[in-house]
Amino acid sequence: MSTASAPDLLAAPVEDLLALTAALVAVPSVSRHEGELADGVERRLAERAPQLTRARVGNTVIARTDLGSERRVVLGGHLDTVPANGNEVPRLDGDVLHGLGSADMKGGLAVLLRLAEEISAGRRPRFDCTLAFYEGEEIADEFNGLRHVFADRPELLAGDFAVLLEPTGGHVEAGCQGTLHIRAQFDGDRAHSARPWMGSNAIHAAADVLGRLAAHQASTVMIDGLPYRQSLEVVRIEGGVANNVVPDKCTLVVNRRFAPSHSVDDARAEVEALLEGADRVEVVSASPAAPPNLNDPLVAEFVRTLDVDVEPKLGWTDVARFAARGVPAVNFGPGEPNVAHTAGEHVTRESIEQCYAALARFLGMTG
Amino acid sequence: MSTASAPDLLAAPVEDLLALTAALVAVPSVSRHEGELADGVERRLAERAPQLTRARVGNTVIARTDLGSERRVVLGGHLDTVPANGNEVPRLDGDVLHGLGSADMKGGLAVLLRLAEEISAGRRPRFDCTLAFYEGEEIADEFNGLRHVFADRPELLAGDFAVLLEPTGGHVEAGCQGTLHIRAQFDGDRAHSARPWMGSNAIHAAADVLGRLAAHQASTVMIDGLPYRQSLEVVRIEGGVANNVVPDKCTLVVNRRFAPSHSVDDARAEVEALLEGADRVEVVSASPAAPPNLNDPLVAEFVRTLDVDVEPKLGWTDVARFAARGVPAVNFGPGEPNVAHTAGEHVTRESIEQCYAALARFLGMTG
Repeated sequence: MSTASAPDLLAAPVEDLLALTAALVAVPSVSRHEGELADGVERRLAERAPQLTRARVGNTVIARTDLGSERRVVLGGHLDTVPANGNEVPRLDGDVLHGLGSADMKGGLAVLLRLAEEISAGRRPRFDCTLAFYEGEEIADEFNGLRHVFADRPELLAGDFAVLLEPTGGHVEAGCQGTLHIRAQFDGDRAHSARPWMGSNAIHAAADVLGRLAAHQASTVMIDGLPYRQSLEVVRIEGGVANNVVPDKCTLVVNRRFAPSHSVDDARAEVEALLEGADRVEVVSASPAAPPNLNDPLVAEFVRTLDVDVEPKLGWTDVARFAARGVPAVNFGPGEPNVAHTAGEHVTRESIEQCYAALARFLGMTG
Repeated sequence: MSTASAPDLLAAPVEDLLALTAALVAVPSVSRHEGELADGVERRLAERAPQLTRARVGNTVIARTDLGSERRVVLGGHLDTVPANGNEVPRLDGDVLHGLGSADMKGGLAVLLRLAEEISAGRRPRFDCTLAFYEGEEIADEFNGLRHVFADRPELLAGDFAVLLEPTGGHVEAGCQGTLHIRAQFDGDRAHSARPWMGSNAIHAAADVLGRLAAHQASTVMIDGLPYRQSLEVVRIEGGVANNVVPDKCTLVVNRRFAPSHSVDDARAEVEALLEGADRVEVVSASPAAPPNLNDPLVAEFVRTLDVDVEPKLGWTDVARFAARGVPAVNFGPGEPNVAHTAGEHVTRESIEQCYAALARFLGMTG
């Protein structure tokens, strides 16, 4: 199958989830260029899921039921992909679809479209549902569509439980660790390197702290029976003026990944203690962790209904955005996480169909 | 005095060393642009020191006596300056000349011109003399005029003793320390910083070595009664890919300054021992030290005749180029070293006249 033979997004049959995914892959949507795909999704929802209310914020499209249920489930998937890597043309090989965004996460978008269309056609779920197709997930947080909707129209994302259809390889990934970047600066005084005692060496001044950071053993925290393995890494170091000058500045950046047992302030205090001796310390970025919430009734029911393995999420994801607003959230979607962002990205028909079936079962869709 | 009122280099009276220095400062000669000044010096020597043999190699001008003396003294000064710093117009304030190159080292060039002209006029020295006006001292070694002459026409620089007229503040600076730059690289494996155990952190791998380097106490070596205070400085460090990636490479550059008691190989072995644990080690540059040679008969006589303080030279200078060829050499010239390369560079009449008088006395110039 070439691009030309991928079905048009508006024409793709909803029953063939792999063909629908191919149609989604055939519309390029690298971050900050999601407009064409957002338009296609919006039009398809208008034509094929007219019973749902639609809203658009930038290039984020949200479709909602209004069934009067007591509880609402938010299901989300991002429209954007990382830049192409020679894999921008979708290619079908039997029941495997290759191509940019096939796993991360247009297979998940196909599942969301089918849920919208089946519900609109009368297969009533036991929860109200909100389906969010959002922009800007693969790049800096300032571009994230969920961030913008939460800021400008939070009522569109209100709910009691959220599922993000990121590729999880058939597992439920619960919660997520927080992430904190801190920059530390060490000061010195320049001097000719033949007479270093006339100055002081900022790189030498950083040595003790670097030794402490490198020797630090990050612990693993068990939460709801899940092991959150924390980490602390120096991700950058830089210092030096010229080869004959004692340097007057050395900076390093530490990335701390912390378990949901810790607040951002806890994590900052821990890192700052390890940075004792630095002349300046500055938080570059901080994102809170999300608890797994396995004892929340909806999360517990979700896990029980799906009957799949639950794993802790170690990287930060948008589930934390819901958790920060008191909404428990998990990742569960088709495709293998380890092929995301690779030239060999692909997704299988089985994984998309199993995801759709599991979500339809959890949502209790009748008819 | 403005540029316009500085005497022309060909017309400047040799008796007024400060005016002659001003004439030299008035001809711009930033490194790699020494042509006009080399032309002026060459013409002045042709007109005013016709008894000396002249040679030119690039923009290096060499004038030599051929008196049949058993011993020959080489006296050298570089033509080039560092880039201007708002100080390119010479300015005379009483007996102080301000301006780019006044101290480093056109005061010394004026002394060399006067020596050439007095000798040519019949004030016979007790040694044969070689006067070298050379290009490219302030920049990378590949441009150094002495280096080129030693490589292409070494007979022009043959001698038994050399004096470089760099600014020394009235002291003799003996020998010089060697300098060695070594780059060390530490390797790792990239991984997402949320799962650092999937890779290995190259910056962390550098921590032990950096700690060892920072803790190292460089010793002071006494040679001929002079204290050569050595040093070992990390002058650069660099590592990092992105803020969410475990870095796979970290490099640092060490600058070792070593006393004349040590060969380049000695210094390299010392540094490499401290770098134990690096994945790759590479010599970036190496220049040998020069011994003070205070017991050499000519050096001893020079120091005794001048009756000034002798200090060890800690920075590398061209004296090492002579020492490497078995020729003892010292730095001795007008001006203060600590004003070199500054916007406030200046030189006094007294320091230039004292330098000339001291050298004429050592050379035993009669008449």
